[in-house]
Amino acid sequence: MTAKPNAVVAQSGGPTAVINSSACGVIQEAIKSGKIDRVLGATNGILGVLKEDLFDLTAEKPQTIEALKQTPSAAIGSCRYKLKSIEESKADFERILDVFKAHNIHYFFYAGGNDSMDTADKVNNLAADAGYELTCMGIPKTVDNDLAFTDHCPGYPSVAKYVATCSAEAGRDTEALYTTDTCTILEVMGRNAGWIAAATGLASRCVEDAPHLIYMPEAAFTFEKFVEDVKQVYKELGRVFIVSGEGLKDQSGQYITADQGKFSKDSFGHVQLGGVGAMLKAVIESEVGIKARFNLLGTNQRSAMHFASLTDVNEAYMCGQMAVKAALDGQNGKMITLVREDDPEYKCTTGFAELADVANGEKKVPPEYINKAGNHITDAMRDYIRPLVHGQALINIGADGLPVFMRFERKPLEKKLTPYM
Amino acid sequence: MTAKPNAVVAQSGGPTAVINSSACGVIQEAIKSGKIDRVLGATNGILGVLKEDLFDLTAEKPQTIEALKQTPSAAIGSCRYKLKSIEESKADFERILDVFKAHNIHYFFYAGGNDSMDTADKVNNLAADAGYELTCMGIPKTVDNDLAFTDHCPGYPSVAKYVATCSAEAGRDTEALYTTDTCTILEVMGRNAGWIAAATGLASRCVEDAPHLIYMPEAAFTFEKFVEDVKQVYKELGRVFIVSGEGLKDQSGQYITADQGKFSKDSFGHVQLGGVGAMLKAVIESEVGIKARFNLLGTNQRSAMHFASLTDVNEAYMCGQMAVKAALDGQNGKMITLVREDDPEYKCTTGFAELADVANGEKKVPPEYINKAGNHITDAMRDYIRPLVHGQALINIGADGLPVFMRFERKPLEKKLTPYM
Repeated sequence: MTAKPNAVVAQSGGPTAVINSSACGVIQEAIKSGKIDRVLGATNGILGVLKEDLFDLTAEKPQTIEALKQTPSAAIGSCRYKLKSIEESKADFERILDVFKAHNIHYFFYAGGNDSMDTADKVNNLAADAGYELTCMGIPKTVDNDLAFTDHCPGYPSVAKYVATCSAEAGRDTEALYTTDTCTILEVMGRNAGWIAAATGLASRCVEDAPHLIYMPEAAFTFEKFVEDVKQVYKELGRVFIVSGEGLKDQSGQYITADQGKFSKDSFGHVQLGGVGAMLKAVIESEVGIKARFNLLGTNQRSAMHFASLTDVNEAYMCGQMAVKAALDGQNGKMITLVREDDPEYKCTTGFAELADVANGEKKVPPEYINKAGNHITDAMRDYIRPLVHGQALINIGADGLPVFMRFERKPLEKKLTPYM
Repeated sequence: MTAKPNAVVAQSGGPTAVINSSACGVIQEAIKSGKIDRVLGATNGILGVLKEDLFDLTAEKPQTIEALKQTPSAAIGSCRYKLKSIEESKADFERILDVFKAHNIHYFFYAGGNDSMDTADKVNNLAADAGYELTCMGIPKTVDNDLAFTDHCPGYPSVAKYVATCSAEAGRDTEALYTTDTCTILEVMGRNAGWIAAATGLASRCVEDAPHLIYMPEAAFTFEKFVEDVKQVYKELGRVFIVSGEGLKDQSGQYITADQGKFSKDSFGHVQLGGVGAMLKAVIESEVGIKARFNLLGTNQRSAMHFASLTDVNEAYMCGQMAVKAALDGQNGKMITLVREDDPEYKCTTGFAELADVANGEKKVPPEYINKAGNHITDAMRDYIRPLVHGQALINIGADGLPVFMRFERKPLEKKLTPYM
């Protein structure tokens, strides 16, 4: 390489409150190193690479880059574009290398989940086969916390802090109005792994506190047991606050859905359109005979910068920073992992996992974190989550009383190749 | 009166983030005055009076009372029990007076909305007819902000701050993932008045910012116009972020639903809403052909103490405090109002409205706060809401990183009457 190489940073999949902190870590560390010419943003993840839709992050104002730490979602732009095997997506993979070559890109920093690590791994292998000097580093990102090899994923601590707080707060609402609005269901994200639902258990400091019941896809769900659980809590407390992940599964691992039999319609005969929250509400109203309502936090839970975990922001930044340091230090084909030190006081450092290994792994809530009844968490889960939600992330509040988020100027790079898609 | 009189404070209807701040104002001011013996809490609003289910708030620890300011929902307990006319609910009204007499209660402080002010007014009239010395004072409370005679209602600024922030945040999520997850609908509270939906307009500081479209029950809704609006924004920005109140009405004032005419009603006879988000999602997916999702904040929006408005907390406290001061000063049959001073700098003082007048009034979002297209707000609305969301309420964060809320010890008063219900 004669000229200093360029780097690309891209964001993929569902955004989080701190994926921009990771990008900030990459950009600031790359600039600081003096070994990278320009850090390019790929607009909308791998789509930006394929479309040669790149912009110069190093040309943005320093305060814009710094403000990434206070801005939720994926400021560079994300996507859900999935590359398959090298054979099936051959043209895409070759295009990625062509774009890298055209713009002197020799570093690829990709923040995402399993699929993104898979993509980064394949691009890396293809470059090696083609003799093109490329360093691919993965940065863990998923609110679902389901990546293997890392103690936890940046993004998860913030959603955990937020949903646990929401449970504590809405639980007080149900407590105040229990004489009529007796049951509340909080539906949270997590289709295959119940980490987000499990985090809300931290809010129940005593038997009075919400949530009283927590359902996760890792614990086999039956309507009969569920109705019994609800009746039991209702008998004890006169109210019920339930948290459920968006995916619930039966003993054979099949998703429980409203169209399984008698619960396909609500008490008014309406066909259920919604997800788990709407379904559980209908079951409770018809089988327990108490009024139920549900809250669906949706994308608000993963973008809740206004109450993000400071620990999460700092660790996400560290992951971005370490990806650059390691890449410049000769590491390649790795994802940065978070390593919890074996110390009574919480300490978190970083390590590495092979991209290929991460791509094929999935971390579920382990049995020892779920109570025997399959409807709440254990102290082991509390010990796991407690240090992660520590500290409140800084936010810049504007004169209008609302948070101020940054936006890039997005100076586009001149395209050098023919349009691809 | 030979012994010093007792006072009752009660909370009614849907909780807010700051109704406990009003209670704190009542309790601390009553203690400070030296003119009231005990402040009694009526467990679950007027139900607690009817059931003689009272506890001694003045026996609670001072720090518990102080922590009310940092605790959402209705800590004394709320209810949705509706008293009708004096003729129809004669036994209830007489029972209330009997309980007041039995416990030497000569002050009644009732925090609630229209229905609660109606109840307080009727109790007051009945006491006067019976020659029982009673002072009834109302404290405004409703997230819906639909009470007449007051510039705004305590509770509204906090929900406004929270939903506007949620719009800004989830809007960034939609912006990042627009290539697949193109449209997001945020369904917020507001059955007949669109104040909460309107507040989210503060988050759209520029054309890029969410929300792009806001629907309020005050602006006649048609599916045809809605589909046109969505197509227009989609064409301009490639994504659409929509906020809708839970009640939308057509030109004749009828609620719009996917399934007209199959509503249940709540215990006040109010039409039970919900499902606007799911309905609009279905319309967009079928008529515009883009993927849509909806977030339903539900009771989380009215209990979001973790991002409540400091202005709201302080004003709610002031309302409670002023209710006591005014009562001891000889006022009766009034609700405390918030008065915005005619000054470029926001200043808020208190005034009075007749309970009977408040009971029959309803304040909707005025036409000058809604844009001509009926799908967003005007600068006049921005000017109205901006100072209200100012400042962030204090919260006590525990060692586990989550907010800590108070709970009363609830030393029950000995019952002196026969059970009533």
